[in-house]
Amino acid sequence: MKKVVLGFSGGLDTSYCVKYLTEEKGYEVHSIIVNTGGFTKEELEETEKRAYSLGVKSHKTVDAVKSYYDKVIKYLIFGNVLKNNTYPLSVSAERMSQALAIAEYVKETGATAVAHGSTGAGNDQVRFDMIFHIMIPGVEIITPIRDLKLSREEEIAYLKSKGVAMNFDKAMYSINKGIWGTSVGGKETLTSNGFLPENAWPTQLTKQEATDVKLVFEKGELKGVNDQTFDHPSAAIQYLQTIAGPYAIGRDIHVGDTIIGIKGRVGFEAAAPMVILKSHHALEKHVLTKWQLSWKDQLAQFYGNWLHEGQILDPVMRDIEAFLENTQQHVSGEVFVTLLPYRFQVKGIQSPYDLMSSKFGKYGEMNSGWSGEDVRGFSKIFGNQTMIWHQIATSNQ
Amino acid sequence: MKKVVLGFSGGLDTSYCVKYLTEEKGYEVHSIIVNTGGFTKEELEETEKRAYSLGVKSHKTVDAVKSYYDKVIKYLIFGNVLKNNTYPLSVSAERMSQALAIAEYVKETGATAVAHGSTGAGNDQVRFDMIFHIMIPGVEIITPIRDLKLSREEEIAYLKSKGVAMNFDKAMYSINKGIWGTSVGGKETLTSNGFLPENAWPTQLTKQEATDVKLVFEKGELKGVNDQTFDHPSAAIQYLQTIAGPYAIGRDIHVGDTIIGIKGRVGFEAAAPMVILKSHHALEKHVLTKWQLSWKDQLAQFYGNWLHEGQILDPVMRDIEAFLENTQQHVSGEVFVTLLPYRFQVKGIQSPYDLMSSKFGKYGEMNSGWSGEDVRGFSKIFGNQTMIWHQIATSNQ
Amino acid sequence: MKKVVLGFSGGLDTSYCVKYLTEEKGYEVHSIIVNTGGFTKEELEETEKRAYSLGVKSHKTVDAVKSYYDKVIKYLIFGNVLKNNTYPLSVSAERMSQALAIAEYVKETGATAVAHGSTGAGNDQVRFDMIFHIMIPGVEIITPIRDLKLSREEEIAYLKSKGVAMNFDKAMYSINKGIWGTSVGGKETLTSNGFLPENAWPTQLTKQEATDVKLVFEKGELKGVNDQTFDHPSAAIQYLQTIAGPYAIGRDIHVGDTIIGIKGRVGFEAAAPMVILKSHHALEKHVLTKWQLSWKDQLAQFYGNWLHEGQILDPVMRDIEAFLENTQQHVSGEVFVTLLPYRFQVKGIQSPYDLMSSKFGKYGEMNSGWSGEDVRGFSKIFGNQTMIWHQIATSNQ
Amino acid sequence: MKKVVLGFSGGLDTSYCVKYLTEEKGYEVHSIIVNTGGFTKEELEETEKRAYSLGVKSHKTVDAVKSYYDKVIKYLIFGNVLKNNTYPLSVSAERMSQALAIAEYVKETGATAVAHGSTGAGNDQVRFDMIFHIMIPGVEIITPIRDLKLSREEEIAYLKSKGVAMNFDKAMYSINKGIWGTSVGGKETLTSNGFLPENAWPTQLTKQEATDVKLVFEKGELKGVNDQTFDHPSAAIQYLQTIAGPYAIGRDIHVGDTIIGIKGRVGFEAAAPMVILKSHHALEKHVLTKWQLSWKDQLAQFYGNWLHEGQILDPVMRDIEAFLENTQQHVSGEVFVTLLPYRFQVKGIQSPYDLMSSKFGKYGEMNSGWSGEDVRGFSKIFGNQTMIWHQIATSNQ
Repeated sequence: MKKVVLGFSGGLDTSYCVKYLTEEKGYEVHSIIVNTGGFTKEELEETEKRAYSLGVKSHKTVDAVKSYYDKVIKYLIFGNVLKNNTYPLSVSAERMSQALAIAEYVKETGATAVAHGSTGAGNDQVRFDMIFHIMIPGVEIITPIRDLKLSREEEIAYLKSKGVAMNFDKAMYSINKGIWGTSVGGKETLTSNGFLPENAWPTQLTKQEATDVKLVFEKGELKGVNDQTFDHPSAAIQYLQTIAGPYAIGRDIHVGDTIIGIKGRVGFEAAAPMVILKSHHALEKHVLTKWQLSWKDQLAQFYGNWLHEGQILDPVMRDIEAFLENTQQHVSGEVFVTLLPYRFQVKGIQSPYDLMSSKFGKYGEMNSGWSGEDVRGFSKIFGNQTMIWHQIATSNQ
Repeated sequence: MKKVVLGFSGGLDTSYCVKYLTEEKGYEVHSIIVNTGGFTKEELEETEKRAYSLGVKSHKTVDAVKSYYDKVIKYLIFGNVLKNNTYPLSVSAERMSQALAIAEYVKETGATAVAHGSTGAGNDQVRFDMIFHIMIPGVEIITPIRDLKLSREEEIAYLKSKGVAMNFDKAMYSINKGIWGTSVGGKETLTSNGFLPENAWPTQLTKQEATDVKLVFEKGELKGVNDQTFDHPSAAIQYLQTIAGPYAIGRDIHVGDTIIGIKGRVGFEAAAPMVILKSHHALEKHVLTKWQLSWKDQLAQFYGNWLHEGQILDPVMRDIEAFLENTQQHVSGEVFVTLLPYRFQVKGIQSPYDLMSSKFGKYGEMNSGWSGEDVRGFSKIFGNQTMIWHQIATSNQ
Repeated sequence: MKKVVLGFSGGLDTSYCVKYLTEEKGYEVHSIIVNTGGFTKEELEETEKRAYSLGVKSHKTVDAVKSYYDKVIKYLIFGNVLKNNTYPLSVSAERMSQALAIAEYVKETGATAVAHGSTGAGNDQVRFDMIFHIMIPGVEIITPIRDLKLSREEEIAYLKSKGVAMNFDKAMYSINKGIWGTSVGGKETLTSNGFLPENAWPTQLTKQEATDVKLVFEKGELKGVNDQTFDHPSAAIQYLQTIAGPYAIGRDIHVGDTIIGIKGRVGFEAAAPMVILKSHHALEKHVLTKWQLSWKDQLAQFYGNWLHEGQILDPVMRDIEAFLENTQQHVSGEVFVTLLPYRFQVKGIQSPYDLMSSKFGKYGEMNSGWSGEDVRGFSKIFGNQTMIWHQIATSNQ
Repeated sequence: MKKVVLGFSGGLDTSYCVKYLTEEKGYEVHSIIVNTGGFTKEELEETEKRAYSLGVKSHKTVDAVKSYYDKVIKYLIFGNVLKNNTYPLSVSAERMSQALAIAEYVKETGATAVAHGSTGAGNDQVRFDMIFHIMIPGVEIITPIRDLKLSREEEIAYLKSKGVAMNFDKAMYSINKGIWGTSVGGKETLTSNGFLPENAWPTQLTKQEATDVKLVFEKGELKGVNDQTFDHPSAAIQYLQTIAGPYAIGRDIHVGDTIIGIKGRVGFEAAAPMVILKSHHALEKHVLTKWQLSWKDQLAQFYGNWLHEGQILDPVMRDIEAFLENTQQHVSGEVFVTLLPYRFQVKGIQSPYDLMSSKFGKYGEMNSGWSGEDVRGFSKIFGNQTMIWHQIATSNQ
């Protein structure tokens, strides 16, 4: 019997896929769910149960939180990556991890086909297709929802006809949760104007009084929060989320370019990611040189965009990661943050690598390392070419 | 008698300069103050009075608000310029305007020397020196405070010995105000850790209830706020400031690289600038293509840094301005913002140039413009090179 | 009767298309050839004759040399564009001009379909498809050669069966000629190793003795060659080609990334283009500032790549053109070149905007504009941040 | 007695320095010469002899060829660095090596001062000053030639007065030789127009008949030439120079921006460097992806410029090196070159990592990996955003 590996979330689309692949296409379906931090143990068990009830031959749950951090999030932090200066790439990034884990499983099972539940209208189809083409070329890619252009109603009708009993109610907002943030789409995000109402956000404001929190970075990685240290930075992120989440921090709407050329708008909340990114950046401003900061920005902007477009396997991404990793050698120290309802303030940093060292001159105070004469000479030479340019421009008028 | 033009603020340093240049150096001092939006009419009159009381031969007040906008701020908005993703360059930008106006006045008066009150420890000395070297080469640049390395106490003693009566108390924080924001330095900003206390901020929170505000952009420029329209965008900025200021929006601390190589830290508040920059950027995300957004970011980052370093006269700045100006042709429309204490939300936009047009496919919904098959083909070709790369990499292992 | 506009070169593929579209598909075929400088008057007349003999309803010849220069080549010169530092984009660039002219003709004729003879294996199909999608959306794009995957032999057999008499011999090398260079593909270029033999090059070495030639630029455009001036720069290019061509200058092999992800290799000869590009660049090195040169390089590299990929209609290209145009204000003067067999030397320039003016200090000679002390101060400040970094790095070891 | 370390070349300027530092300033002079490949054993012995005859306390000869390659040239090759697309940075690069070796020697000897013979008019003074400031802060930097602004005649008169007998004739051209090329300055290079005459070039054309040569790269480094392999790439470079030099290859004139803002012009010959750079680049075009090539170009352009400006110790340079190094993993293979008088041709490459593999589709031939339909879909999606942009632009006209 032909084997197909199916990325399975337990939702309507992928439930449809199980039945369709089994009953219409005669496949032995091996479902897989890849957890990038968005699912509880209970939810994963529930999903497994549903998979078997729908008739899969086997179901696999992959805990990808650590590998997701190691392969993707780490570099997003190193690069302070915010797409369009706004969006921490919560969803884009985790799709890569999921697609890679699914491809791995295809190899392991020896399946001749792989299926995903993407529609023909978004980014995810490209991400899955492309990673499968690259990692498991030759394996057939089946996308029933995209190919059959089914409406929600048609899917429900089909499932009902097959005796499937599940909650077919549509949620008001489509939510995607992972360790690097939660996206929220629907109603207000479908047009260019409108902000999500308070109750649409998965995490509600439940704390009012300010809290101070200390983030401890080692070579760019979050290793501690307050007095807690962690085996793996992913645990630190999750712990910080429990502290920052109740402040409803890191909510915004991202307007961006999809891979397929249209503009899309989506809400997101990302309390811990935003606090980490801004803290990490603050630390970097103290310990990196001007041109390190500048080139990091340029490379990271591309890195984020290219990742967003599903191109994580382009070897240029490894080259940029090598650059970013190398920049982090001095990015160690503590960052002090105050959490407040809906916002936070980075108050300052402490680091043995702080270039704002009082030993080498304070901004606004004279220093023994150089004299006013030195700066006078500097200014003259620093503006020399432009001075010549203006003299020549003027003489030609 | 030798003429010197002196940039004069009315503070201790430049007051010292008047006396020093007159009495020790035998100069006829022509003082000038260039208003970039930070001074009231009363303050300017007060400054003029003080100048004459100190013994200047003439005093000139230049209203540079419009030219400051036209030559600098306009492009900072076009480029969404935030240095290190944080600081709207409030001070850096206005120094350029001031230095240019002073140089102009030197030419006008035929002075053979120009003086400024900068110390040897900050950015401003380089900015003034350099613009003078370029625009009025050959004119002697005199910087008494830098050259004599005077302490505050020595300056006061000298002025008292000359019979000058003024308030010699040192303000707790050094404040610099202009239309594009106000900087606040002192105590907490002198080390790497510490946030300014509530009462250090020049503009206090005086409004609690949320307000909706509409910004109207035409080709990238702010032409209206709510139902008000304005002759000149600088007036729109000032009007928006009256609305947004009471929310204590746009406060932060900037850590940056000074031109002279040390790191510096300064607080700033910039309510209207931050609301404008984020609104403008939001509009751009809807009307510009992916690569327009990407290249704008890169060029604007450099533009901001180079401006910060006093290099506004490098002709490359004109070239970048030409680029930025050209990108703004479709940046017209309305942006809807909610103001809240200490923060604001961009809620959405409306524009005839919105690329997120429902006519051309909605994110997440199938569209008649292309099919799932098209995207399937796209994904294959889009990942083709990386697919080949991986095949070849694998075959060489 | 349904109308189709067909891009027609007179070769085997497009001859097949005429017959196929007319006889198999029932179209009224309106053929068009767009001359970008590669065809003589005789060749164009010959092509027209063939078109009618194959049964087209109408045939149009468009002289696009000037518009090709105005819309594309001008900016390639402004940007000194050489793809991968090698290839002047001879073919890539002219495809844009051709596709745009064809799209224009489709609108003019009101045709409901447009056809091109591209195969499914190269860049041109993407360029034509994409420009048609953008400029004439809704118009059906027909690509018989790509869709039917016909072999050369099948095409010939079909044409013979229709009574078409033409020279069916395959040229040893496939040649594409235009004002901005001639590409030569075949045999040696089909693998990664091998240079084209002497006799494969369309232009043979016919001159041995060195010649001096003077190029006159005005704002970046070639306006004169030696003592000749020209109405339009395209005429200057063509004239220079008559002088430089006989030296067999500008031959090389380009290895590049196709739009569809595979690597391709093609020979090209481009005597006048290479002489112009190198002369223009030499002039720029004298009249532009350091950062103008640097940003021009970055933007032009992208411009060339994006043009190569058929994206000339992305509005970011207009923005880059605005930048490039603005940089050319001082790019006026004369460039002196010596032509030799297979090579040339740029000997020097003369320009009123030359920044290497003896008035402002000669390299290697002391100058009154600044002193050794100034440079000493400059060096100290210029290296200040790195000095601090190293002190701190060392103290942490 | 106070110790000074003096960078000593044996020429007029540094000979003057020995006498001046010893007799006028009372220093114990420890001279040092750092060979970056430009000196023969005999020349180095001669220099040592002269140093002692002038009265140095000690003289040290450092062979820096390998470390120069390891620290600098390697990355120039990885980045295909040609400043302004012309100049391999022959001199700029070796100054870094020399300054670093001198600073090291200062630490070793415990000298309290370091001296170099630079004038106040060129790049070298900044390079030496800056590296000394950074590596040996606090050590006094003495620059007699710059500070005393001596003319050649004054230096000669002084030396004669001290009984120094040496050849005081001025060479027609100033020549600086190293493993990465030889610079030639004088007469024709002092103005903007003029090419060096044949006899000015240190290496004369002595071979006419073409030679084929094979370069063997491993991870971006030259490890073999023809059938020779080498312990260290620097030996391979020197061997290739013996083959390519007699063809007078790699001559040109570089016009560039000095660190101090003026433009400078200098001739150079660099046979082996040019052959290596172009061969390396050719290989890269076959084995790297599009974006690897693109980002390498951008980073390498900056790397070259920043190196030229003496900033090799900025840690961003280490970050870029990490990027470049990472890109070289597949840059292994053979490059085939033909050497001819004054020019050379890269004929092709062979590499196990060649992405132009016939297995994955040949340019111009249909391939089983994708279909015409795939490309049709690709073109539609690839142009989608620009299509929407044009529709909206048109509808607003």
